Amino acid sequence: MNRKIIGKVMAFLLLLEALFLIPPAAISFFDGARDALFGIVVTMAIAIVLGLLLWLVCRKAQRSFYAREGFLMTALGWLLLSVVGALPFYISREIPHYVDALFETISGFTTTGASILSNVEGMSRGLLFWRSFTHWLGGMGILVFLLAVVPMGKGGHSVHVLRAESPGPSVSKLVPKLRQTAAILYSIYIVLTVLCVIFLMIGGMDLFDALCHAFGTAGTGGFGVKNNSLAGYSHYCQTVCTVFMALFGINFSVYFLIILRKFRQIFKSEELWAYLGIMLGSMLLITLNIRGMFPSTGEALHHAAFAVSSIMTTTGFATEDFNLWPQFSRTVLLVLMVIGACAGSTGGGVKVARVVLLAKGLSLRIKQMLHPRSVNLMRAEGRTVGDETLQGVNTYMAAYCAIAVISMLIISLDGFSLETNISSVLACINNIGPGLDVVGPTSNYAAFSDLSKIVLMLNMLLGRLEIFPILVMLSPKIWRKAD
Amino acid sequence: MNRKIIGKVMAFLLLLEALFLIPPAAISFFDGARDALFGIVVTMAIAIVLGLLLWLVCRKAQRSFYAREGFLMTALGWLLLSVVGALPFYISREIPHYVDALFETISGFTTTGASILSNVEGMSRGLLFWRSFTHWLGGMGILVFLLAVVPMGKGGHSVHVLRAESPGPSVSKLVPKLRQTAAILYSIYIVLTVLCVIFLMIGGMDLFDALCHAFGTAGTGGFGVKNNSLAGYSHYCQTVCTVFMALFGINFSVYFLIILRKFRQIFKSEELWAYLGIMLGSMLLITLNIRGMFPSTGEALHHAAFAVSSIMTTTGFATEDFNLWPQFSRTVLLVLMVIGACAGSTGGGVKVARVVLLAKGLSLRIKQMLHPRSVNLMRAEGRTVGDETLQGVNTYMAAYCAIAVISMLIISLDGFSLETNISSVLACINNIGPGLDVVGPTSNYAAFSDLSKIVLMLNMLLGRLEIFPILVMLSPKIWRKAD
Repeated sequence: MNRKIIGKVMAFLLLLEALFLIPPAAISFFDGARDALFGIVVTMAIAIVLGLLLWLVCRKAQRSFYAREGFLMTALGWLLLSVVGALPFYISREIPHYVDALFETISGFTTTGASILSNVEGMSRGLLFWRSFTHWLGGMGILVFLLAVVPMGKGGHSVHVLRAESPGPSVSKLVPKLRQTAAILYSIYIVLTVLCVIFLMIGGMDLFDALCHAFGTAGTGGFGVKNNSLAGYSHYCQTVCTVFMALFGINFSVYFLIILRKFRQIFKSEELWAYLGIMLGSMLLITLNIRGMFPSTGEALHHAAFAVSSIMTTTGFATEDFNLWPQFSRTVLLVLMVIGACAGSTGGGVKVARVVLLAKGLSLRIKQMLHPRSVNLMRAEGRTVGDETLQGVNTYMAAYCAIAVISMLIISLDGFSLETNISSVLACINNIGPGLDVVGPTSNYAAFSDLSKIVLMLNMLLGRLEIFPILVMLSPKIWRKAD
Repeated sequence: MNRKIIGKVMAFLLLLEALFLIPPAAISFFDGARDALFGIVVTMAIAIVLGLLLWLVCRKAQRSFYAREGFLMTALGWLLLSVVGALPFYISREIPHYVDALFETISGFTTTGASILSNVEGMSRGLLFWRSFTHWLGGMGILVFLLAVVPMGKGGHSVHVLRAESPGPSVSKLVPKLRQTAAILYSIYIVLTVLCVIFLMIGGMDLFDALCHAFGTAGTGGFGVKNNSLAGYSHYCQTVCTVFMALFGINFSVYFLIILRKFRQIFKSEELWAYLGIMLGSMLLITLNIRGMFPSTGEALHHAAFAVSSIMTTTGFATEDFNLWPQFSRTVLLVLMVIGACAGSTGGGVKVARVVLLAKGLSLRIKQMLHPRSVNLMRAEGRTVGDETLQGVNTYMAAYCAIAVISMLIISLDGFSLETNISSVLACINNIGPGLDVVGPTSNYAAFSDLSKIVLMLNMLLGRLEIFPILVMLSPKIWRKAD
């Protein structure tokens, strides 16, 4: 095992984090928020000192590394960024309990958006900015960012980092060079985010609110700056978010294909059609179900569309307390929580691509049972799907279920309702944010015990990194010296 | 497609059902329950006339058939038996609504034990006997019974019937001849049932109660003859049920190995150890969790053991209202509902064998991610597991999840709590019976709409026949003439 390369990457990450803390520090400085500024500056100092020390020890690392190192550096990197990123909240005493600060930060980086804050508006603007900024950094993946700006790894093994950090059953390099792929992804991400900011500002939001909400939308995170999420903004602003959440839930390779003008290939994307179909179908069903609760069908459609876009892309913004909607709508939302967005997007969940593959595997199986001697090949997105991909999807689902069940058992010790427990585990592992009942959209996660909070934090990381990097990190074998 | 062989098998099944209605008819006759007797006799007449007509039309069927016919005759056979078997309840007016009568009968044959009756003790003894008897017939599979007594099918294709009706990821013929395998299985089944009756009668139960409860235990069904299930019987009788439920949840090939004195092979059965481990572990956890609710730890253990044995083997008998237990215990029970009993037993659920295979697939996957070039073979029960078996398990799980989600969505239209909806779907698809909240052990399924009842009936059949035979029956292709 090449430990030094891991250390070197961690050093880069710490220095990057110090860099990213500059904007919140500037805001705190201009606002004169001394406690917040102190917390941020101390954290920057810690990150820089730790980063330089690590760099000194590990700077002569061999550049080549394998899958193991790739998984491990991703998992450790996310943990390290969160542990350090939580310090400003803690040092400034704006979140006085460290477990809560860590919960908020992991929730931010993993783009979950689950919060322990009951009064968001009581926070200083600098730290609110940092809180939303973690969404944006976590959305596309901070190691992918590193990949784009720092020349690393010879021999192409850094693909394992991209694989560990990018959501979906398989990773597709847009262009042969990994570094260029990462750069293209981030460019699309930045352009879309800027567009979102502009559209929000046209609706009358000030720059700060527009930036924070654009970060939450782009990362499909869901942290807002108001206690009632987006309920207080105009219908226009809410609709901008509805549309942009849906856009950020689409596989980014689709945007790359648009740039290349390969429209025929986009048209053939089964995942995209499935995603849009499920989304529109759910909006329709929920609109019909909640019609009676609103003055007009149009109003019902507005809120249904927002909730579906927010939950399916695993963002978690809210305009309405969908916890009060009829059971059918709540169940539809619970199912959307699990399905999630497209692979290769910033959204979470199981991913539409996996659901499509599972459905195809199922219909293939029935065909084979009826005609045992026929040879059937599975095709998806115009290509034959290998056994290994299908096997990977199936193992992923098994791991997903096992983790959800074990987590639910542990947090059930807190004694909340089954609905609370199921929806909070699903909301965390799928990186959504709000669940139902005790953790509904007008409430928060503060009521859970520390043990449950730690379990839920692990769920967020497992969900964001798609389980295996974290399992690798937790496996005792990997830490043996001999390996 | 060989339609005539299907018709011929249906004819045999109808005649068999008429035969099995003799004991309840006799009880009704001796009790002087005229309405019940009338209902049973009319049903017998219908079954005999229909059976003879079908036999006349289809008696010259070619004996050879393939997988398709095997699946189809299993699915249709279970449907036909239930549709006719519900008539005595309906004609006697003891269950005046036919959908309810069908629900009760499908629940009986599939060994689910979910009931729409609020007053079991108001039923006549003859029909109570029939209700429990359906559990016993459904437990080992009525087509397996047919296989054992009627010479059918040349060329060994009747293995598809055994495969469709026997629970588990793979079917193992105990001896080369299928007919003998079926006969051995039924012999073990009868011996164990008789033992259960004897032990219950030693505890003071009268013959009728002992028979009904033994049927419910052997089939892991759960219909009782009292409104409070087994709560009114002595601790001794409850313990007899605890032990026998657990015994009927074990793969029957284990008993065959005991007869052959192949103890070493039993010792190596991973499924058996996993089954016992999960069962004892859950008993311990629940005992610790509910200790404070009972006068002594022994009393808590008694009820925890009963509930775990009842739920894990998917029987559904109750001594205590576990709906009132703490959330942790309820969540453990919910997980046990899904895991279920061993493959090749009379129990339902996903089956321990599948859970073991999924866990092994997962650990294999992690190994392969860490060492991509290593070759790993999966072994279970001392044999290498082929990709096809693993693929089958995975597809099964995918279908299982899809069906559960769709069912939950439909029954959520009735507006009950999420806990009610999840647990009633799980209780039906896993053939358990009682769920939580509205469908808890002291309550019943009467409150659901007819649409929900039909969905839940389909769930019971899907669960009992392990999904694919029913999916095959519902697939439009199979009904095309050309095939």
